[in-house]
Amino acid sequence: MPNVYESMSAAELDQALADLQKQADAIAAQKLSLDMARGKPSSEQTALSKPMLDLVNSSTPLVDGKGIVDNYGTPEGLPSARRLAGEILGVPADKVVVSGSSSLNLMHDLVARAFTNGVAGQKPFYQQGQVKWLCPAPGYDRHFRVTEDLGIQNVVVPMHEDGPDMDMVQELVESDPTVKGIWCVPKYANPTGVTYSDEVVRRFAALKPAAPDFRIYWDNAYCVHYFGEKDDELLNIFDAVKEAGGSQLVYEFGSTAKVTFPGSGIAFVAADEEDIKAVKAAFAVERVSAEKFSQLAHVLFLKDLDGVKAHMKKHAAVVAPRFALVEQKLTDGLADLGIASWSHPHGGYFVSFDGPEGSAKRIVKLMADLGVKLTPAGATYPGGRDPKDSNIRIAPTYPSIEDLGAALDVFVVAVKLVSAELAREARA
Amino acid sequence: MPNVYESMSAAELDQALADLQKQADAIAAQKLSLDMARGKPSSEQTALSKPMLDLVNSSTPLVDGKGIVDNYGTPEGLPSARRLAGEILGVPADKVVVSGSSSLNLMHDLVARAFTNGVAGQKPFYQQGQVKWLCPAPGYDRHFRVTEDLGIQNVVVPMHEDGPDMDMVQELVESDPTVKGIWCVPKYANPTGVTYSDEVVRRFAALKPAAPDFRIYWDNAYCVHYFGEKDDELLNIFDAVKEAGGSQLVYEFGSTAKVTFPGSGIAFVAADEEDIKAVKAAFAVERVSAEKFSQLAHVLFLKDLDGVKAHMKKHAAVVAPRFALVEQKLTDGLADLGIASWSHPHGGYFVSFDGPEGSAKRIVKLMADLGVKLTPAGATYPGGRDPKDSNIRIAPTYPSIEDLGAALDVFVVAVKLVSAELAREARA
Repeated sequence: MPNVYESMSAAELDQALADLQKQADAIAAQKLSLDMARGKPSSEQTALSKPMLDLVNSSTPLVDGKGIVDNYGTPEGLPSARRLAGEILGVPADKVVVSGSSSLNLMHDLVARAFTNGVAGQKPFYQQGQVKWLCPAPGYDRHFRVTEDLGIQNVVVPMHEDGPDMDMVQELVESDPTVKGIWCVPKYANPTGVTYSDEVVRRFAALKPAAPDFRIYWDNAYCVHYFGEKDDELLNIFDAVKEAGGSQLVYEFGSTAKVTFPGSGIAFVAADEEDIKAVKAAFAVERVSAEKFSQLAHVLFLKDLDGVKAHMKKHAAVVAPRFALVEQKLTDGLADLGIASWSHPHGGYFVSFDGPEGSAKRIVKLMADLGVKLTPAGATYPGGRDPKDSNIRIAPTYPSIEDLGAALDVFVVAVKLVSAELAREARA
Repeated sequence: MPNVYESMSAAELDQALADLQKQADAIAAQKLSLDMARGKPSSEQTALSKPMLDLVNSSTPLVDGKGIVDNYGTPEGLPSARRLAGEILGVPADKVVVSGSSSLNLMHDLVARAFTNGVAGQKPFYQQGQVKWLCPAPGYDRHFRVTEDLGIQNVVVPMHEDGPDMDMVQELVESDPTVKGIWCVPKYANPTGVTYSDEVVRRFAALKPAAPDFRIYWDNAYCVHYFGEKDDELLNIFDAVKEAGGSQLVYEFGSTAKVTFPGSGIAFVAADEEDIKAVKAAFAVERVSAEKFSQLAHVLFLKDLDGVKAHMKKHAAVVAPRFALVEQKLTDGLADLGIASWSHPHGGYFVSFDGPEGSAKRIVKLMADLGVKLTPAGATYPGGRDPKDSNIRIAPTYPSIEDLGAALDVFVVAVKLVSAELAREARA
């Protein structure tokens, strides 16, 4: 579809720009203060989990199998919490460690451990010269920052509709022994909403890494977070690895940060037997024992995978109208203009938006001037560098429906204005 | 005092050994299963904090100053929790970060961060060749393991009655730029029970490190844990540093692991302005947000330093009789034999016991054979190597009074038997 502004005559374009500038000025006069930046649940969502706070009190039995809730011990997590986490990830409880409230913290600690002490008996990364990490992008900025912060070289891999570019992944992983890991959000990916296809998962599972200390960091953050008609199906990566005859290829992560309470969920990591043994050994140095009251409360509240799914339906009822509003406002405002495309996710927390090349930073800046905060442009790429400067992450869950609608109206004007400006600049 | 067994005639010694062996055999026949190994609170103690579990429920307001308890944000901890932690450590709230449930985890993360990214703009440790860490010993095995695990060379510094050997500390810290840190438990030290004297604290505060990235790791784990007649007084290290005209010399740590619930307390770190800024920046990479429900519950339960002290009196009532029993049993059984000495702490979790040189491993092994578990001999020294093989850590809090008494009776026999054996072997 041709870019409507590029197709206009000079006079038409001037007129369009004047109209859009007038709309922008009218918005600026309203002195809005709106926020579409943060991928966090709304207070309506967090309220859904408040009943959990009543489930552990001074008369609750504090024994859980061989776990004592109110004293040291079972650093791998309460047996019942490991069972619950295993059900969520689709792995046996004994392959899971539940620890702390942040899966990002678990990921960081394993990458940092690989850096300082090595993986599977190999030398620590710091003794191996410059090592590399694959970063499907657009992706999750905090992932990229963990590896960047350790001086690991982040390598961008393009994201397609069905997952990362697997030809590139395979080529790099199988030929380059300095490639030590890849960040993946395999379901309802941040920010594209893509769920990896069976083919992509199978290609991951069949990888024959050049480096014995290569691991896939499979951050299944949104595994139960669908809000559409039907849940996307993601192949179980451990099953696929087994089918391919491999092992010790994957660390899988999850948390209930966006099931119960952001920052106060339970976090977990799963891996093959030898790997999970190494994870436990690493954690034995850095952690005395896990916080277990939160684990117990989660088990009493969510019970099992069915309980989790039932609870997530309540989240879906809150977030689905917000995502529908994004779709409607963007369609009404931008469809058929040939200047933008966006994702239509069935789950997760984001809509990934692409404007014309070179537009993203300007749109985000203009939005800020108009009183609407967006995620910084480029944030979805390693180092904050989007090569096309076109991608913007829209996070529709936190604002109220009213605020979200208002913010999207501003967004439509901003995208059009910046697109029209770019069209004029291209002629100059 | 001369060693009673060494002073005996050969016949007397044979007789003593035969008597002791008979006593040991009688104990073995009882097939005991007792445990004096673990520095953890008893269930009587953890029960003291159960009322805390009733303070946060579905109707509790979840706002705390600028902190929202049930969503992301304030990664430095809830304002009220920082205030409480600041009161416990005697520092302003804005110099404190409250995060997670394990102060050991905070210590580990800062040492690991120094290793991977450096301190105060200096090169990461891994780029500085072999670096060293001072380990006052006997000390806390988990401290030593954190640095050892990163390949840092642990250097033993002798512990005296008033703290570490400060001549040695000063000499090493001020002359050797590869010395990057020192582990300290300045009050009711693990395991000696020593509280550093004002003179020792002032000498720490006045250190002029050769390395600009040297820091004192001041683990004030037992700052409110007295059970004697009178609390030991520990100088405030930050005040002392200021008085000495210094800054950015200390990270101080604390937690409520042994105030409320082991493994499920709140943990905190304090440092000077520039250092705490760096701590926050480091944590921003590895943690999304802190678990805040536990922070809120702690604040509602403990309120302030007075509340903490009142609560610790209840702990003291439980643990004081146990420490008194250790003192009594050891005095009754071993005083005047010239074979042993032990500490008489006013607070903390341990009694540090010293038998004859070369006795500790044998005593611990014999105790295990007699059905009583002790902390492994050597655990209180870096690498598990006690140069004299004489130190044993006694942890009297966890067993019941009855079990503790029985275990100590066995201990007295074991110490005497091993000492007598050593005396005979010395003659052969």
